Amino acid sequence: MDFYSDLKRIREKRPLIHHITNYVVMNDSANITIALGASPIMAHALEELEDLVSMAGALYINIGTLDERWIESMVKAGRIAEKYNIPVLLDPVGAGASRLRTEVTQRLLESFPVKILKGNSGEILSLKGIKGATKGVESAVSGELEAAISVAEKYGLTVVMTGKIDYVSDVKRNAEVENGTPMLSKITGSGCMLGSVISSFMAINDDPFISSIEGLLTYEISAEIAEKESDGPGTFKIKLFDEIYNFKEDYYNMARVKYL
Amino acid sequence: MDFYSDLKRIREKRPLIHHITNYVVMNDSANITIALGASPIMAHALEELEDLVSMAGALYINIGTLDERWIESMVKAGRIAEKYNIPVLLDPVGAGASRLRTEVTQRLLESFPVKILKGNSGEILSLKGIKGATKGVESAVSGELEAAISVAEKYGLTVVMTGKIDYVSDVKRNAEVENGTPMLSKITGSGCMLGSVISSFMAINDDPFISSIEGLLTYEISAEIAEKESDGPGTFKIKLFDEIYNFKEDYYNMARVKYL
Amino acid sequence: MDFYSDLKRIREKRPLIHHITNYVVMNDSANITIALGASPIMAHALEELEDLVSMAGALYINIGTLDERWIESMVKAGRIAEKYNIPVLLDPVGAGASRLRTEVTQRLLESFPVKILKGNSGEILSLKGIKGATKGVESAVSGELEAAISVAEKYGLTVVMTGKIDYVSDVKRNAEVENGTPMLSKITGSGCMLGSVISSFMAINDDPFISSIEGLLTYEISAEIAEKESDGPGTFKIKLFDEIYNFKEDYYNMARVKYL
Repeated sequence: MDFYSDLKRIREKRPLIHHITNYVVMNDSANITIALGASPIMAHALEELEDLVSMAGALYINIGTLDERWIESMVKAGRIAEKYNIPVLLDPVGAGASRLRTEVTQRLLESFPVKILKGNSGEILSLKGIKGATKGVESAVSGELEAAISVAEKYGLTVVMTGKIDYVSDVKRNAEVENGTPMLSKITGSGCMLGSVISSFMAINDDPFISSIEGLLTYEISAEIAEKESDGPGTFKIKLFDEIYNFKEDYYNMARVKYL
Repeated sequence: MDFYSDLKRIREKRPLIHHITNYVVMNDSANITIALGASPIMAHALEELEDLVSMAGALYINIGTLDERWIESMVKAGRIAEKYNIPVLLDPVGAGASRLRTEVTQRLLESFPVKILKGNSGEILSLKGIKGATKGVESAVSGELEAAISVAEKYGLTVVMTGKIDYVSDVKRNAEVENGTPMLSKITGSGCMLGSVISSFMAINDDPFISSIEGLLTYEISAEIAEKESDGPGTFKIKLFDEIYNFKEDYYNMARVKYL
Repeated sequence: MDFYSDLKRIREKRPLIHHITNYVVMNDSANITIALGASPIMAHALEELEDLVSMAGALYINIGTLDERWIESMVKAGRIAEKYNIPVLLDPVGAGASRLRTEVTQRLLESFPVKILKGNSGEILSLKGIKGATKGVESAVSGELEAAISVAEKYGLTVVMTGKIDYVSDVKRNAEVENGTPMLSKITGSGCMLGSVISSFMAINDDPFISSIEGLLTYEISAEIAEKESDGPGTFKIKLFDEIYNFKEDYYNMARVKYL
């Protein structure tokens, strides 16, 4: 795959990425999207969602600080995306940690088509059990890729399951990405920013399996370089914006991806 | 004009700048206001607006992530500002991009006096057409200053229209500011932070045409210096706070302003 | 006191610190909590508060951008904390500046047990007068420690009153902390981040008088070191995250605390 040509297309076309996301990360998510080369929009008012989502190249929904009003906006935005054939990435932050989050994730998945579901293993695993024969978390953990495949199959989408190793599956194709740095877990919103990056690739590449891998590599390689230039999580986050902005073709030589 | 004496007055008097702004930029807007020398307040609850706005030196309203509840707060805050004779700067983020934003901007302009209307050319131009003979966007773009003048005249206020060149007009007086750096477009909220800076000058200088120019110069010269010290948009934003905090009298020698 | 052993316990146990806080600082507060070694959660939906607060090691409530919906969440979260015996830190941002804030602070203090009340002198003093014989603010200012003691006594909790000198009192014991730097007043949310840090110590040390001192020292010593490495408030904030993350045992040699 020629990852760099897709990055160049983002920088040239500057697709609009509509975000409905949480209060904590809005600023960082907007900045990572711009640094990558795309254009973020953040808007949630029901009255204007059609005007704005219909112009977007992708819709990114993140339930990090959800409440009833925001849930309504998420459902409406997703349905508008469906109407205009705009791809959706869903980030079920905290699914499994509260009943509300697990149920809302389920409800969103049933309300409109989602192209990519991205979460950590706890979040993805929490969706495995719903309305199905629960295998129990322990057994599933021993086979993370297996779990990603089963969720991808259940919902008919591409799953990105992040962790020390990231798994990507659309059932037919599976990949492992081993880039990144533990420093990503020392800042808030590192998963949310990844969601913005993958959504940007999704806006210019129709194949969600490919755009997921491109997003993971671009973000995590930038993080590896940023980590080397930083003295802690403060400087790390700042350099992460710099590095994704300065991303060069040969950085992709650092890619550690396996197709399984 | 002696720009520096007004900056010194901000640093000495530390005027309260009441912000009703969007979720994405609240942190950066508060920090740029403090770095300049003024004091930000962010509060939107209807029950406390009178207690807080009445103490402010200026009110800054930004519709970036509006919804019905926030619109209500904006209207109420503006009317309180009118009652206490506090100058208002309105930042119609996204006007023209959705009908809601264009209408809300119009509604705010009709609900209370606005001293300064600050936006990019798309936003300002979207206000030209309302209830008027629309000239069409293309023709207007060829005469950006003309558009700024016509909006200033229509609403009886000072217009700041930002872009590669910034235009300031109160109909009688017109100016062009050519400072700044393209790096400002690589971070979110650069226009919103400018709004906080102009509002701070507006709080200590009664002439909105002058305070607009002072705000533009102080912010954009700081950005030029910050850009030279940065490796990308991450470090740029951080250095922008440093430079506005460290702003010295001779920085104004870099001013590129023309009175037309 | 062996401050460092408590910091190590935070880093090992990574207690969940549930935050109900203001929009302006959410990102910084989450990041300082992670940098210290604890785990932030930010959630306010009434439907999920019991699921989430019940897992927390501490609850931190900050009224910085309150409105009626958030007040409801604060009351509910506090009552859940009481049910599960989870310690609560209340940060009455702006109490005294608006009637709403003073009344809400009072209401929260009456609705559930608060272990630590942390504010600047204006905020703490505003609580002295309610329903009591008001001594008038001027006289009280001349005896800040006295005021802290009297509020601690009135509400039966530990008071942290921040300023050039910070006072800690649980009536029986009193302390002064003189660490910190004026640069902390040049960034927004410095008090809010301190609240997250003290809450993290409160989660692993049952004595709120001790955990208040530990939080103050860890945060303010980190700030002193960060200040030396910075060129202004932008770089200062970034280095503050780095320094609290890299905090070493011998940093506590810089502690300037007096037990009165």
